Amino acid sequence: MIEVIAFDADDTLWHNETRFRKAEEFFKSLLGDHAEDAHIDDVLYRHEVKNIASFGYGAKTFTLSMVEAAIELSHRNISGAEVEEIIRIGNEIINEPLTVFDGVQEVLEFLKRDFSLMVVTKGDLMEQENKIRRSGLGPLFRYTEIVSEKNVETYRNILEKYSIDPRHFLMIGNSLKSDVLPVIDAGAQAIHIPYHTTWVHEQVPDHVAAASDHLELKSLEDIPAAVATLTR
Amino acid sequence: MIEVIAFDADDTLWHNETRFRKAEEFFKSLLGDHAEDAHIDDVLYRHEVKNIASFGYGAKTFTLSMVEAAIELSHRNISGAEVEEIIRIGNEIINEPLTVFDGVQEVLEFLKRDFSLMVVTKGDLMEQENKIRRSGLGPLFRYTEIVSEKNVETYRNILEKYSIDPRHFLMIGNSLKSDVLPVIDAGAQAIHIPYHTTWVHEQVPDHVAAASDHLELKSLEDIPAAVATLTR
Repeated sequence: MIEVIAFDADDTLWHNETRFRKAEEFFKSLLGDHAEDAHIDDVLYRHEVKNIASFGYGAKTFTLSMVEAAIELSHRNISGAEVEEIIRIGNEIINEPLTVFDGVQEVLEFLKRDFSLMVVTKGDLMEQENKIRRSGLGPLFRYTEIVSEKNVETYRNILEKYSIDPRHFLMIGNSLKSDVLPVIDAGAQAIHIPYHTTWVHEQVPDHVAAASDHLELKSLEDIPAAVATLTR
Repeated sequence: MIEVIAFDADDTLWHNETRFRKAEEFFKSLLGDHAEDAHIDDVLYRHEVKNIASFGYGAKTFTLSMVEAAIELSHRNISGAEVEEIIRIGNEIINEPLTVFDGVQEVLEFLKRDFSLMVVTKGDLMEQENKIRRSGLGPLFRYTEIVSEKNVETYRNILEKYSIDPRHFLMIGNSLKSDVLPVIDAGAQAIHIPYHTTWVHEQVPDHVAAASDHLELKSLEDIPAAVATLTR
């Protein structure tokens, strides 16, 4: 029954959130003289949410948010050298080597024999393109979709664009909010594979998660067996 | 013979480069105490080119480039208030109302009767999506392609993705480098409609422009007559 298997990328195929967490720690140590950690977190997150609405997700938006948060937290007393340091931290998120999860290549190669594979990732266009390229996994995907947001409309548009029947579409990802709930709403199937940490922006209430009709797996390596059950 | 007509967006369907030029003028007046205008231009452009390679085109990259250039030009003596002002200038590029060129809507509606229309725009994903939405022109396009770079590979990928024969594809845009030369290289046709100003990054040498086999028009309103000639 399943013909197309789509994968989220960040924190589903490779580590990503950990880079941002590391940058946040640097940022907090840099701003430590100006404010308490919890307050820094709050102010940074407020700037992130505001900027995501007009700039989209990704390291560029995060870097600009850190600069703005630093100006606010320091009451404009941030120095040129400190702003320079913040931009360096932002660049590190982008330039840090990409770590693909163990077994991903093998699982994708196995599934590719019987299914068309797709990657659906949200974020900055060039940043996500570069990650796909650096992962070496690009050639395994028949379709690559980089989107600015993952809601039910996004998935409906993708399915329509490639004339895919929702009943033949399975999405796999670490975010209930982005990779599971809107996919189920679009009439397709979804598998949730949690990552060890979830960005607050992607969190959904427990009762919403519990009410959703999806499969949950521990590892990407459990997918072939699960897919065999779904397609039986 | 032509079946799909594709349009560049920035400076082809609406004003764009002028926003960046305006921001550059603000930036130069802000940094006027630290350096001469020509030096400011050079340093800013150097940071832009460096950042485009890892971050892609668009206002976010431009804003980060202005911040970095300001740090360099001020020998790290830029103040928090000045950095705040630079970010405000960057936000203005994004938030300024979009001005669609006269006659665009009518020309697209006329062409839509006989051709499938496409928009191919390079830049930041969400920024370009927002411009297309705000232009009100989105529904006139059958295909929307937001790309990180426009080279011959980009056009080949698009043609392959939608199974379009290059001989049936016509691209229209203001940049010889991005909208004309790579399209001709891909075996398709192109029409150049110059904008009154061309960003230095998009400029091509005169002899390269002269050697290219494309049509040049003054205005989008000349397209229907030109297309009638091409398809005869």
